[in-house]
Amino acid sequence: MKKFHLTAGPSELYFTVEQHIQQALKDNVAVISHRSGAFQEIFAFTVKQVKEMLGVPEDYHVVFTGSATEVWERLAQDCIAKKSAHFVNGSFSERFHAFAEAWGHQTQKIEKPLGEGFSEADHKIDADVDLISITQNETSTGVQFPVEDIYKIREENPDALITIDAVSSIPYLDIDFTKIDSLYFSVQKGMGCPAGLGVWIFNEKCVDRAKSLKAEGRLMGGYHDMFTLLKNASKNMTPATPNAIAIYTLGKVCEDMIRREMKIIRSESDYKSSLLYAAVGAHKDLDYAVKEERVRSKTVIVIEVKEGRDAKDLMAYLSEQGLEVSTGYGPNKATQVRIANFPTISKEVYFRLVDLIEAW
Amino acid sequence: MKKFHLTAGPSELYFTVEQHIQQALKDNVAVISHRSGAFQEIFAFTVKQVKEMLGVPEDYHVVFTGSATEVWERLAQDCIAKKSAHFVNGSFSERFHAFAEAWGHQTQKIEKPLGEGFSEADHKIDADVDLISITQNETSTGVQFPVEDIYKIREENPDALITIDAVSSIPYLDIDFTKIDSLYFSVQKGMGCPAGLGVWIFNEKCVDRAKSLKAEGRLMGGYHDMFTLLKNASKNMTPATPNAIAIYTLGKVCEDMIRREMKIIRSESDYKSSLLYAAVGAHKDLDYAVKEERVRSKTVIVIEVKEGRDAKDLMAYLSEQGLEVSTGYGPNKATQVRIANFPTISKEVYFRLVDLIEAW
Repeated sequence: MKKFHLTAGPSELYFTVEQHIQQALKDNVAVISHRSGAFQEIFAFTVKQVKEMLGVPEDYHVVFTGSATEVWERLAQDCIAKKSAHFVNGSFSERFHAFAEAWGHQTQKIEKPLGEGFSEADHKIDADVDLISITQNETSTGVQFPVEDIYKIREENPDALITIDAVSSIPYLDIDFTKIDSLYFSVQKGMGCPAGLGVWIFNEKCVDRAKSLKAEGRLMGGYHDMFTLLKNASKNMTPATPNAIAIYTLGKVCEDMIRREMKIIRSESDYKSSLLYAAVGAHKDLDYAVKEERVRSKTVIVIEVKEGRDAKDLMAYLSEQGLEVSTGYGPNKATQVRIANFPTISKEVYFRLVDLIEAW
Repeated sequence: MKKFHLTAGPSELYFTVEQHIQQALKDNVAVISHRSGAFQEIFAFTVKQVKEMLGVPEDYHVVFTGSATEVWERLAQDCIAKKSAHFVNGSFSERFHAFAEAWGHQTQKIEKPLGEGFSEADHKIDADVDLISITQNETSTGVQFPVEDIYKIREENPDALITIDAVSSIPYLDIDFTKIDSLYFSVQKGMGCPAGLGVWIFNEKCVDRAKSLKAEGRLMGGYHDMFTLLKNASKNMTPATPNAIAIYTLGKVCEDMIRREMKIIRSESDYKSSLLYAAVGAHKDLDYAVKEERVRSKTVIVIEVKEGRDAKDLMAYLSEQGLEVSTGYGPNKATQVRIANFPTISKEVYFRLVDLIEAW
């Protein structure tokens, strides 16, 4: 039996991906020169689709990296001047914090226990912070950061750069880019593409920051520093020979989603998450891992298995029926399961998942 | 007509690649977790094949990056202590030199004009150099650095790290790894795989260097610094969600080549290059771009078109017959063409290429 992956890491491929990869092979996408017009067209097409899909303003830049993990490194190297603030409530928000420290920056860590979100009372950013990192959706715990809260932080902090980790909430996330300075994601989650590509979106304010740091003597290297990325992107190119099939496939999947309409994709995600959360709430042996509804993720659904039953059993039971889900992360490995609610996972699969969970 | 790419950038895919990608899609390679046993098996398999194919000693490390370009950055960050020496005779050797300077290192540039190689008289490495960069095959000019010369440099410089750029000579290059400290390549040239993956091989001496630099306070970040790469590789994993299809495909292509026998692959490359060079030598309007035979590349063949005829015409003529070749690089764009001689390009294609060139 071929398993269907509702995992929160790499997840099931978007249903059109295989056909796009076949077409890419047929069209020699991996063979043509990355300095050719044919590649420039692919690059330009994908950037245009990403912008249209997410409503990215014309004057924001879109560049490609190896992963979203790489973007943390770039932000630490190119955009943090002296001190960054990090809302940390899981492994991924923690890891960017660790990167900032690894680059010798001062940091402010605003921390909450796993499974908890942040409220307005937590928005106390130190006055000397110049970059604020917000993980909009913590993949490790299923906690989201509501966009209204992000907008409030913007109002209270007009000068600091605000950067959004949207790895596991794109394309569901509907955010006003004019209220943030940078957003990044990788393609193997909500976009349902094969891993190996990060997308980094940022505005001129980020470029100005990098420029002033460079002018002050900050070393940024020559590989994927912001200037090398931008210089190439301005020609619809990449600094090194790229994963062209991945850039092509991402553009095509964006186009597919735009055609289906982002409103429909988002409302379907809402609907599927309501179904699953309702089943969890009604089940005597299950509970929401995220108690506060306001910060409960719609795209990574984390379920707590109450004492007396075993999360491993639930995973094995679903796996026997062909549905693969993820374990809880880190210390929650034994007591939680994580289930992706990404666009490629149909309502029908969710109906079946909910039936199975109800019967467990 | 589907064009056959004998280009020196990305090139024709190895003839088994499409089928490996199909199998990877069928086996859910892009969907399984990169923290799972199934991925660890793929990682371990590919490392084993790379080592076997190239004769890499057991105690050398193999890690994956986004490209060979990324490896320059890593070497500059993690391995150059104070001063690096660079043999520069083309765009790629020049670019690593630029990276080293971008990271604030002192450099010694041993430079030759485009199309020329290095001789023993050029091996005058400054006493304070701690890393020596050798581009074994300059893709931009078709000049090779004979391995015997590399071994001599090793003897004369027992302490400095010796790092080899073998981007466009792997898997043809047959080198004794015990006489070098690091070698790197990307997969879209001689391996015939889709771009988006670099392979970085290094020994404990490189690790020791990185350790001592870190101990001295060198900042290396947290993304793809040597320690994060090694920590993950020791578990057959990558620091971020990887391009798993690319790692899988590389392993399979290595296996295919090992099965065919590296000796045969190498002697076929020798044979094809002799055929083409003979045709160039005999043609009244063509000449070797690399005059000195000793340093003439076997894997990237650069042809000079004499005054009166036009390199663009030669390219257009070959293209009409279905064979795509590359322009000369940089200042040689108008007067040279570059032709790949990689394993996926069969003798039969080369027979046809030679016939066409003779008739031009």
